[in-house]
Order: sequence, then C-alpha cells, then structure tokens
Amino acid sequence: MKQSDASWGPPRPERADAARNRQHLIATAREMLAELGPDRLTMDALAERSGLGKGTVFRRFGTRAGIFGALLDDGERVFQEQVLCGPPPLGPGAPPLDRLVAYGHARIRFLLEHREIARSALDGRQAVPAGSQSPLSRTHIRMLLGQIDLGPANLDLLAVQLTAALDGPLLLYLSATTLTRSPQQSERQLSDSWQDLVRRVCRP
Amino acid sequence: MKQSDASWGPPRPERADAARNRQHLIATAREMLAELGPDRLTMDALAERSGLGKGTVFRRFGTRAGIFGALLDDGERVFQEQVLCGPPPLGPGAPPLDRLVAYGHARIRFLLEHREIARSALDGRQAVPAGSQSPLSRTHIRMLLGQIDLGPANLDLLAVQLTAALDGPLLLYLSATTLTRSPQQSERQLSDSWQDLVRRVCRP
Repeated sequence: MKQSDASWGPPRPERADAARNRQHLIATAREMLAELGPDRLTMDALAERSGLGKGTVFRRFGTRAGIFGALLDDGERVFQEQVLCGPPPLGPGAPPLDRLVAYGHARIRFLLEHREIARSALDGRQAVPAGSQSPLSRTHIRMLLGQIDLGPANLDLLAVQLTAALDGPLLLYLSATTLTRSPQQSERQLSDSWQDLVRRVCRP
Repeated sequence: MKQSDASWGPPRPERADAARNRQHLIATAREMLAELGPDRLTMDALAERSGLGKGTVFRRFGTRAGIFGALLDDGERVFQEQVLCGPPPLGPGAPPLDRLVAYGHARIRFLLEHREIARSALDGRQAVPAGSQSPLSRTHIRMLLGQIDLGPANLDLLAVQLTAALDGPLLLYLSATTLTRSPQQSERQLSDSWQDLVRRVCRP
C-alpha cells in the first residue's frame, strides 16, 4: 500500500485492535517473565501463550530482543511521569543541579531494577545505531543545564556528552557477560560517579 | 576441527596465506573506495575485483559493514602509534591534561577524516553491543587521569564516562541520516566541547 500524504500530519493513531493486541502481548510477556524468567520468554512461547499468531508477534516486535525493548519502554512511561511531575528532587521544585543528580540516580536505579529486561533488550540489538541516545535523558539534561549558570558553554553538546556519560557505564555493566558485582554495589558506584561527574562539570 | 588446549597460550599467529589474503583484500578495498566511493564497495564487488572467492570475503568480514570496520581498524593502527610514541602533546612529554585534550582532538579528527568509512562501518552493526567502547580510548584516558591530581574519584568509572562522552557526540554525528554541518565546522564544535568538558572535570 502506498504511503499517503497523511505522513505529513500527526502520527496516525494505533488502530483499536492493534492497541488491544499490543496491551495483551505486553501483559502476557510480563506474566511469563514473572513465572518463567527471561530465558523462556521467546517469540514462539509468547505467540502460543497469547493465543495470537506468530506473524502478529513478529510484526509487533521484530526480534526476541524487541519484546524486552517494548517491556522496558512500557516501564519507562512511569519513570517519565515521575521526572515530569513527581515529587522533587527528581520532579520539579528542586534546584537544577540537585535535579540533574537525582535524574541520573533514578535512571541508574530504573535500569538496574529492570536489568534482566535491559540485558535481554540489548541482545543482538540491530536497528539501534551505536550513536543512539535516550531522547528523554538528553532533553531533560539539556533543560536542566539551561537553568544552571555554567558560563560560556555549548549546552546542546554538553547535554549529549552527559547523556553518553550517564549511559556508557550502565550499558557497559548491563552488556557484561557476567554481572560480577551485586546490583546494590553497582548502583552505589554508578550513582556516586554520576554525582561526582555532574558536580565537577557544574562547579561555578 | 576441535579447538585444542593451545587456546590457553598466546593467540595462534595468522597463517601466512590468511595474512596475505587479508592484506590483499584491505588494499583492494582501499583502491575501490578511492576510485568508486563507498556505495559501490560491496561484498560481491570486492570478491570480484580481488579475485578471491565470495566465501573468503564473507569469512573475513561477515557483512559489508565489516569491510569498513576493517579499513577503520587498519587506519587506527597509525593513530595508535602517534598516541603511544608520536610527538607531544598527543604523544608522551606534555602535561597529562594537555594530552587528554589532544587525544580527544586527534580521535575526533581521525573519525571525521574517515567519516565515510566510519558511517559505513556503523551500518547495520550487529555484534557490537551498545555498551562497547574503544579500548584504546578508555585505557589511554584512564592512564592520563591517573597522572592528574583529581582528589577523591573513581578513576576507572571516570575513564568510562569520559570515553562515552567523547564518542557519544561523534557517533550521533556520524549516524545522522544526513550530515548537515561541514566536517570542519563539526570538528571545531566537537573539539571545543571535548576541551571544555575535560577542563571542567579536571579543574583543581
């Protein structure tokens, strides 16, 4: 089917049955994850348990890693709400440097809490170029940098640098073949390093 | 063939004919790149022009992006020599903060000079997890950080953060669908931002 000029307008809303299928697949994947663990959550098993065809599961997620990516996005919506309108210092109302520190801590905690999902979402990741960044992180960090008196600086590029510096150590930890440190230990180290970095960068 | 216990020893040297094939393929790929541009450097075209079988080219590079990755690695060897034993401030002999700034500038220049190759090496990149980092960058940055008086800091994690902060904006630029800024303009912006970041981080 030829793409119509509607592609210039707002994105077409998801059809009602497609939205129902997506919600059903996400809910089923969550059940399977809780009951069976990540290793047994496969495309075939999800198709069978959900009662939807393999074709539907494939079109929706593309790869097994895509299932985990969708689970992560779903969880990120809650996280995003806390950033935008939750209590300070993560939400609005705290000084911008405190919010910057809190944002990093919260993102580290979120990804480590969902580390099994995050690790599986990284597996054989194809379509995501190495330069991709979390748009939420970059936009939020850029916004907070604009509220801090940093003297002359290219804030757009500084936001890209800090987004990469936040995610780099996390991705390195999550993509390790074996997780040698406990999540608690890693969370503390990663959080301390993030706090140290942004305080150094934002010193007056 | 079963892998022998020799895997515990030093890596087996490349067989002479394999090394010859590799050198011949890299040289042919360089010729094709210069004459035809990156778009016409494909697995099939390289096999045909090199006179080696498609199987040899496939086993050596895996994917088309793998050809460009090999070309980049080959060029990086020269860069690496300059870092290890070239003139200061990139090579030894300058104060560590100057070397840190110079390293970022040189890496940015290297990747932008080879941007067509680097962009093609990123295409459909599969086996490289998002958390991978240039080992040369991380090791070198970590070594230089150890020579700067930074007060209490987790230097290993700071090196991971700075490696990510150096590569993040570069990868974002290289993976953009269209390169909107000129390489000269981008090199200046990226280099200025790197210098600004490390000076902020390393302020006494």
